[in-house]
Amino acid sequence: MTQRIAVLAGDGIGKEVMPEGLRALEAAARRFDLDLTFEAFDFASCDYYLEHGQMLPDDWHSTLVGFDALYYGAIGWPETVPDHVSLWGSLLKFRREFDQYVNLRPCRLLPGIESPLAGRKPGDIDFYVVRENTEGEYSSVGGTMFEGTEREVVIQETVMTRTGVDRVLKYAFDLAQTRPRKKLTSATKSNGIAITMPWWDTRVAAMGERYPEVEVDQFHIDILTANFVLHPDWFDVVVASNLFGDILSDLGPACTGTIGVAPSANINPEGTFPSLFEPVHGSAPDIAGRGIANPIGQIWSGAMMLEHLGQPEAGAAILAAIEAVLAAGDAGTLTPDLKGHGTTEGLGRAIAERI
Amino acid sequence: MTQRIAVLAGDGIGKEVMPEGLRALEAAARRFDLDLTFEAFDFASCDYYLEHGQMLPDDWHSTLVGFDALYYGAIGWPETVPDHVSLWGSLLKFRREFDQYVNLRPCRLLPGIESPLAGRKPGDIDFYVVRENTEGEYSSVGGTMFEGTEREVVIQETVMTRTGVDRVLKYAFDLAQTRPRKKLTSATKSNGIAITMPWWDTRVAAMGERYPEVEVDQFHIDILTANFVLHPDWFDVVVASNLFGDILSDLGPACTGTIGVAPSANINPEGTFPSLFEPVHGSAPDIAGRGIANPIGQIWSGAMMLEHLGQPEAGAAILAAIEAVLAAGDAGTLTPDLKGHGTTEGLGRAIAERI
Ligand SMILES: CC(C)[C@H](C(=O)O)[C@@H](O)C(=O)O
Ligand SMILES: CC(C)[C@H](C(=O)O)[C@@H](O)C(=O)O
Repeated sequence: MTQRIAVLAGDGIGKEVMPEGLRALEAAARRFDLDLTFEAFDFASCDYYLEHGQMLPDDWHSTLVGFDALYYGAIGWPETVPDHVSLWGSLLKFRREFDQYVNLRPCRLLPGIESPLAGRKPGDIDFYVVRENTEGEYSSVGGTMFEGTEREVVIQETVMTRTGVDRVLKYAFDLAQTRPRKKLTSATKSNGIAITMPWWDTRVAAMGERYPEVEVDQFHIDILTANFVLHPDWFDVVVASNLFGDILSDLGPACTGTIGVAPSANINPEGTFPSLFEPVHGSAPDIAGRGIANPIGQIWSGAMMLEHLGQPEAGAAILAAIEAVLAAGDAGTLTPDLKGHGTTEGLGRAIAERI
Repeated sequence: MTQRIAVLAGDGIGKEVMPEGLRALEAAARRFDLDLTFEAFDFASCDYYLEHGQMLPDDWHSTLVGFDALYYGAIGWPETVPDHVSLWGSLLKFRREFDQYVNLRPCRLLPGIESPLAGRKPGDIDFYVVRENTEGEYSSVGGTMFEGTEREVVIQETVMTRTGVDRVLKYAFDLAQTRPRKKLTSATKSNGIAITMPWWDTRVAAMGERYPEVEVDQFHIDILTANFVLHPDWFDVVVASNLFGDILSDLGPACTGTIGVAPSANINPEGTFPSLFEPVHGSAPDIAGRGIANPIGQIWSGAMMLEHLGQPEAGAAILAAIEAVLAAGDAGTLTPDLKGHGTTEGLGRAIAERI
């Protein structure tokens, strides 16, 4: 059965790491005899915006909806297009309109990568952030009053729904249930954010009753970020609202050494719409065009995509290849963020060869 | 001139660290011949709530408004009073009704404290978080629709005003101006939080024009938390909204070793109302009652209070005493969070003796 993948490289280093992601996927397809086809699109990029005045063509939905998955690079080029325009016109639209309500982000300390945390070794940090991905603090509801005057007031609403919160909690509890430690941590801020977050806590408690085997705890987001640094070994599955999940899934990977390595999956668990796989890192205008971006986040995202497409062995093989190349620690292969002096392509080829 | 200080110990370890804070202040008063008087109140605590059904007496405002400063312990005892009830009924009320619109929190790696970050030494981390402290994400505006049903929708509004944002930005820029590096970092999330945060960015840019000597940069809150861990040396003055500042001022101290040590000042810069000084840590139900809480956050907050009251030498003497005791590193004096086996009182006495 052919599986069709839409390829959207996006901006900046997205265009540099994407070929390496594809190289790894093709290697895995050869080894495991998978029938994958790739179709590349130039939209969902700031270049496209500059030419067409919008991030996506009018028929983007019908163009993409039939694919089995979307493989995404990185988006944003703030010098020419403000971030909120490029992001709301592409990535955030996909998440919402394709109802990719789970954003799943592993935080794992890999061999050969030095953690900025003192004394942490591979195995010490290994958890998932499960982020609500369609509602919450990322809302487009609100506005400005007395605009441009001293009395200016700007309001933005956080909107949470029982449907939206319960389904992502269910996903997180299900995930915790499959893990040896069966532990779920809820990110809250019910002491300060006094309407939505106390309610979030009640939803977590209600869902918890359906999972008696899962041990549940919660931290306010402020001390939770502190505990990511002080006690990263405490965590197994961390479930969070859209904004809190965004923060935790950059901080978690930072604690495991480099953001360049972290993958993410934007999942529509029911499969009604295609899911989207992308690295956690952004388009990195500061290093774009130099061929030194770390392609591992893109490649690992490809591994998550294969897992999602029902090919867990192929996904595992990609991850094993990443780990092997990192463990080998060849400075000529590793990119500068890993303290090497290799290139995007060199590191991508090394991983593809291992696969 | 007598300076009158209202003492509110609060809950849990608040009641244990407060006596040590007072001990240090009294030592400083003797040495610098200050005329400080202290008046203790039992309200703003969960015990008071359980007895009176409210956190504060009806006349709290007139009782406290005449003081020169409020010296606060820690608040919250979630086992008996939900956090949002205790906090909104006390601390958050003080911040708002006494218009303490600046929350100033130093993040400094002190001698003798081991940072969880690999290879960081005293001097490497030394910045301030300036947090907006009265509006923003901590709003009480919003509500629930279709309550208790599957269709439940919960809405909470973030409210920012030009007055509120500009005045805290001004404070932060003024502070940056006095520092050798003259660098200000703005915490934003204008790529995702599409109404309030792009507007926040324009206010930062507008204020920046009035401070040509201050170097300004900005990061989205997700990558900013990552950079606190990866590059804490990049920061000098970080200015943030209420929620983002809350997060950063727990994470920053975590990166400097222990939250138990971090102080904070809730400042009404105009002096129309008393300012409030409190440790960053909470009431810590898990260790309360054992006499092992670290009193340094409380003591250092007292130093910030003296500075605010126009006694910078006395404040500096307290901080120097803290540093000396930490540098001495006597395990019998240091509390368990500092890897010692001392007590709250023992550590407090050691610091007071140095003063
Ligand atoms: C206790 C809580 C409401 C408070 C806050 O979020 O402001 C605390 O975390 C702080 O930082 O002072
Ligand atoms: C680019 C930005 C809008 C996005 C987000 O905040 O969701 C990114 O940080 C992410 O985590 O995928």
